[in-house]
Amino acid sequence: MDRDFFTERDSEAVVISRSGPKAEPRVKEIVDSLVRHLHAVVKEPEPTLDEWLAAISFLTRTGKLCTDWRQEFILLSDVLGISMLVETINNRKTSGETESTVLGPFHVAGAPHYDNGANICRDGKGTPLFVSGRVLDTEDKPIAGASLDVWQANDDGFYDVQQKGTQPDNNLRGIFTSDRDGRFHFRSAYPHYYPIPADGTAGDLLRALDRDQYRPAHIHFIVSAPGFRPVTTHLFTPDCPWLKKDAVFGVKQSLIADFRKSNDAVLAKALGVTAPFYEVAWDFILGRA
Amino acid sequence: MDRDFFTERDSEAVVISRSGPKAEPRVKEIVDSLVRHLHAVVKEPEPTLDEWLAAISFLTRTGKLCTDWRQEFILLSDVLGISMLVETINNRKTSGETESTVLGPFHVAGAPHYDNGANICRDGKGTPLFVSGRVLDTEDKPIAGASLDVWQANDDGFYDVQQKGTQPDNNLRGIFTSDRDGRFHFRSAYPHYYPIPADGTAGDLLRALDRDQYRPAHIHFIVSAPGFRPVTTHLFTPDCPWLKKDAVFGVKQSLIADFRKSNDAVLAKALGVTAPFYEVAWDFILGRA
Repeated sequence: MDRDFFTERDSEAVVISRSGPKAEPRVKEIVDSLVRHLHAVVKEPEPTLDEWLAAISFLTRTGKLCTDWRQEFILLSDVLGISMLVETINNRKTSGETESTVLGPFHVAGAPHYDNGANICRDGKGTPLFVSGRVLDTEDKPIAGASLDVWQANDDGFYDVQQKGTQPDNNLRGIFTSDRDGRFHFRSAYPHYYPIPADGTAGDLLRALDRDQYRPAHIHFIVSAPGFRPVTTHLFTPDCPWLKKDAVFGVKQSLIADFRKSNDAVLAKALGVTAPFYEVAWDFILGRA
Repeated sequence: MDRDFFTERDSEAVVISRSGPKAEPRVKEIVDSLVRHLHAVVKEPEPTLDEWLAAISFLTRTGKLCTDWRQEFILLSDVLGISMLVETINNRKTSGETESTVLGPFHVAGAPHYDNGANICRDGKGTPLFVSGRVLDTEDKPIAGASLDVWQANDDGFYDVQQKGTQPDNNLRGIFTSDRDGRFHFRSAYPHYYPIPADGTAGDLLRALDRDQYRPAHIHFIVSAPGFRPVTTHLFTPDCPWLKKDAVFGVKQSLIADFRKSNDAVLAKALGVTAPFYEVAWDFILGRA
């Protein structure tokens, strides 16, 4: 094959053959794969010159939307399922370990540390929730001293950092530690679904594809312990209408938890909440590092 | 297959299945192809989370570099061979029609109209060049009144619009018209190779891949006539050291012309140039619309 000059048939090979001997091997491996597949995308639907220009304009607008507090390319990666795929490939689980899902943009390093039992809901909105469980290794042995970094949106569907000045600081976020039996428990509010920011190019794409803009209700966790592999994950409520339509594909079946509603006023009092309330019990399983 | 929830194996199918019944069909066709291939790119080299973030940052910087006078995403498309592939797919040629190549960013609408024989080199730099030829249909019949929009870089490797205030306005660009026999001729300067702008992300990519940054010497043409399909193309000089290494893959073998050097002072005088000079004869073949 003559790769000196461009031909439609061998277009990928011509581009790939042009790298020199000092190419960075990992960059070349990734870009070669990208070139093969992007050329295939051109060869399949055969975009017109106007469609190609529209794609250039879409990418340019996406870049212009990015600021210190907004990352539209990550959002685009999210709604195309790329973020979830990269997360999953980098955290393949075996032996019953808790599965991972996307970190999302609303984690804050340095949330307050709390004793077990604390209530992280500072705005008083929503239905009370009691969360309890254990951190275990893959042989069902408790892990004492594990850290559980927890965060979630409030009953209006916003994280504290999206409503600075409106929500109390550190509303619905905090760090707990498992006790000698691997147990943890805390109080919060039943989570609510929410839309992703849809006023940019990612929103334009969702609308053009007639797709939904919502994330189903969930609570975020990063669970870690010395000697174990940490897990970044969510717990999903079982009855959210958006559970099977997550705009960013974060739901895995193994992460849907059994949140139960209760009207038991005596139990509520014992748990430090008011009826009606929800409770969920969940064990996190970590693999050895 | 259960497409309600994300799985690594069926990740593409889960994303594609999420479009609704009111999706714009052409957007869906193109984005579905893109999703299949981008997921394959993740599944082949399996980027780490840091590599994924580096890609997000690269795209963001590319967007930030775009201005009214610079389009880094087009440059990126160019160096990945995408632009050339889109151009080629949209202008497949049959029956000996002149092949197309990339338009490039330096065409200016509304260049001056000249009579045959005019000299478009206004800065006096470089070796004189005499260009002549015919515009023909695919049965070798002359096309009278065809328009030939011509532009090229100067002997320093810059287009007039890159050096406003330094080069004379409309240096090395103009529009000619074929005569009753389909013939055209004009004077110019022997073209020079030049580097593409390499101070942005496209340049970063070329360096990481140990690739060259040059475009081989060429003259741009858009040739059009009523009733015929126009062609956007280049003529390349045969001896340029970058001919087989065009950074944007614009060279097709059929577009390499026989530029000949001459020391014939008598011929030079007859052609309105000074020896030594180059001459090139080239026929453009247009297909019926």
